[in-house]
Amino acid sequence: MNALGRHILLELRDSNPEKLNDLPFIRSSLLNAASETGATIIDHIFHQFSPQGVTGVIAIAESHLSIHTWPEYGYAAVDIFTCGESFDPIDAARLIIRDFESRDPEITKIERGTLNIPASIRNR
Amino acid sequence: MNALGRHILLELRDSNPEKLNDLPFIRSSLLNAASETGATIIDHIFHQFSPQGVTGVIAIAESHLSIHTWPEYGYAAVDIFTCGESFDPIDAARLIIRDFESRDPEITKIERGTLNIPASIRNR
Repeated sequence: MNALGRHILLELRDSNPEKLNDLPFIRSSLLNAASETGATIIDHIFHQFSPQGVTGVIAIAESHLSIHTWPEYGYAAVDIFTCGESFDPIDAARLIIRDFESRDPEITKIERGTLNIPASIRNR
Repeated sequence: MNALGRHILLELRDSNPEKLNDLPFIRSSLLNAASETGATIIDHIFHQFSPQGVTGVIAIAESHLSIHTWPEYGYAAVDIFTCGESFDPIDAARLIIRDFESRDPEITKIERGTLNIPASIRNR
């Protein structure tokens, strides 16, 4: 029983708060992490909140990347969801950890779509 | 120690495969689930794959919603990430389960950003 998707939850703790509030930097970091590790970018949305914080989502052919930052806590939540084997989400996570200078990152790997597919579905 | 974000992973198994390949339906369902439960939509991306499958991401003021569908398996992976209390991601998940007629859904709740914030960060 193989998973259809691999979902990486990255807790980016104790990071550089200035970078966590810098939309151009954040966009560049995530787009670079996606493309450098072989993902195919479809489109992206990045949004600056007031007084602080940035949200970004990138749709990729292999699924998505997202980031939500709390500069006031030196924290960001990052997700990397991928299907197939064309890029390694752990490699992308490592690039993002480096860019935001996280001194206490945590990576959680979750398998998505581990299906026991009944014949009634398989044959629909 | 409170979490900054709540992350709902929704396994949408045994769903209607035609709806899982219908981009306008999927976009409408997710935008409706966000707005009906009180989320504030910033922007969205939806993409149709060939021969089948749809990816969608919605940036909201409270974080994001995403969906990736595998019509051939009657399956979709949905995430709803929210911060604050302005909308309940479980309510949004229930609307999505209803729309795709999932007969075997599974909701996993994950707390994101449960920080032991050191003074050095808190005061930066």
